[in-house]
Amino acid sequence: MGLEFETTRAIEFSETDMAGIVHFSNFFRWMETAELQFLNSIGVPVVKQDGEIFYGWPRQKASFDFKIPVRFGDVIRLKLIVKEIRIRSVRYGVTIRIDKPGAPLAARGEMTTVWTRINPNNGTVESAPFPEGMIERLNGD
Amino acid sequence: MGLEFETTRAIEFSETDMAGIVHFSNFFRWMETAELQFLNSIGVPVVKQDGEIFYGWPRQKASFDFKIPVRFGDVIRLKLIVKEIRIRSVRYGVTIRIDKPGAPLAARGEMTTVWTRINPNNGTVESAPFPEGMIERLNGD
Amino acid sequence: MGLEFETTRAIEFSETDMAGIVHFSNFFRWMETAELQFLNSIGVPVVKQDGEIFYGWPRQKASFDFKIPVRFGDVIRLKLIVKEIRIRSVRYGVTIRIDKPGAPLAARGEMTTVWTRINPNNGTVESAPFPEGMIERLNGD
Amino acid sequence: MGLEFETTRAIEFSETDMAGIVHFSNFFRWMETAELQFLNSIGVPVVKQDGEIFYGWPRQKASFDFKIPVRFGDVIRLKLIVKEIRIRSVRYGVTIRIDKPGAPLAARGEMTTVWTRINPNNGTVESAPFPEGMIERLNGD
Repeated sequence: MGLEFETTRAIEFSETDMAGIVHFSNFFRWMETAELQFLNSIGVPVVKQDGEIFYGWPRQKASFDFKIPVRFGDVIRLKLIVKEIRIRSVRYGVTIRIDKPGAPLAARGEMTTVWTRINPNNGTVESAPFPEGMIERLNGD
Repeated sequence: MGLEFETTRAIEFSETDMAGIVHFSNFFRWMETAELQFLNSIGVPVVKQDGEIFYGWPRQKASFDFKIPVRFGDVIRLKLIVKEIRIRSVRYGVTIRIDKPGAPLAARGEMTTVWTRINPNNGTVESAPFPEGMIERLNGD
Repeated sequence: MGLEFETTRAIEFSETDMAGIVHFSNFFRWMETAELQFLNSIGVPVVKQDGEIFYGWPRQKASFDFKIPVRFGDVIRLKLIVKEIRIRSVRYGVTIRIDKPGAPLAARGEMTTVWTRINPNNGTVESAPFPEGMIERLNGD
Repeated sequence: MGLEFETTRAIEFSETDMAGIVHFSNFFRWMETAELQFLNSIGVPVVKQDGEIFYGWPRQKASFDFKIPVRFGDVIRLKLIVKEIRIRSVRYGVTIRIDKPGAPLAARGEMTTVWTRINPNNGTVESAPFPEGMIERLNGD
């Protein structure tokens, strides 16, 4: 199995909607934030500016199955797992639970992110080869 | 095949991120907004307040495959299709393209939403039977 | 008095919070979107990419007084007025009402935005002289 | 002077915009989150559900002066001060700096929030008397 990473966060009032629960779009923001914290924790660049060229990790796919709502006042625990490392992309799995012992699964997500080169002047967006050492770090070597 | 619904929207500056493209979480907001516009257009309630009980359509699943970035300045065309009507939920497919003839697919999404009863006082969240006439409207009868 | 601009928009579900009303931070997003629509309508650039240099209109100040909440299901009418044109910045006033005849004021805002040059490589952010013709367009000449 | 409260937070990628800096609307979300953390820390309720009635702290005013942009990768320190306690509302001042010794002011904000009673069924929104003990807690007595 791949590397794992855990983080917690407190739900903010602005993340709720009129149903009284967290709006589902925030789960996707949280999944991204955890991914970038994870990459940072293992020394993999999360963004890079090289002259006018921007490098980063846009998503190729993202999905969530929602099981139990979370609410303002909750603290959630997000667990991220590297499921697959490909030539220029990484596939992750994520679980979210209320941060209490024995808490049931609130949501299970998955995403694939691609190391990408973006040129803001001509609009080019294309996958880029991983810099040297990146695969080793993603593998936990 | 099920009912179809189309809508357009102009990308807003606040929807972009430092990669110079739209942040992916916005696609999920747009998919929801289109769904609720669709339901409204066929006379299906999108939210209902009944004393302290709130009824609405939380997501059970939501996913997107991202093909081409969209940017500030773009107008996108979102096409929503009812793929399946179940006892208490609906499964939709969504495509997003720049709103120009012949524009390639920018993203393809899917979501399942559940007619849900939420009690803010005791925290109960449970699927609810469709009100009378809702299935007929969702079927376009 | 300066130029005026009006626009309407339908409140989206994702803009509400658990109080059942629109979260106040969205008013600031709407004010910006209206400003950029206004500038676009008079032929003033809203963003410009010049090699690695980005030009745009970051806010120097932004404020709102909130009078009456707005809700999912409402359509709002936003009216923007150019209050003052300075050497490198513009001050705007904004009013927001439900889009119905005789609707009372929901919120009144103000913002000052600066034509700004941003270099992502060295982090420089500084006001820039207005390009030729910009003051005339902002004045409605 | 009134009570003070400090908190830090790491900027998230989703908070940036295509100018490469944090979108200004997030400063308002952060100011609210800090306020509710502060209230919680002194035992003042931040939301209350009483049957169908919702109690909370909508904003009456909110403003920011922006001095220096903040970016993804930054950790900010937010300092909140109670400036004035009124019959049914509280006025706060906020400063935001990068969380490093001697960092200059990035933004200075102010907001007035009102203890409010909201009835989702008939749409009533009105200020409510502070519950017993709330003024004492806000005063730090």
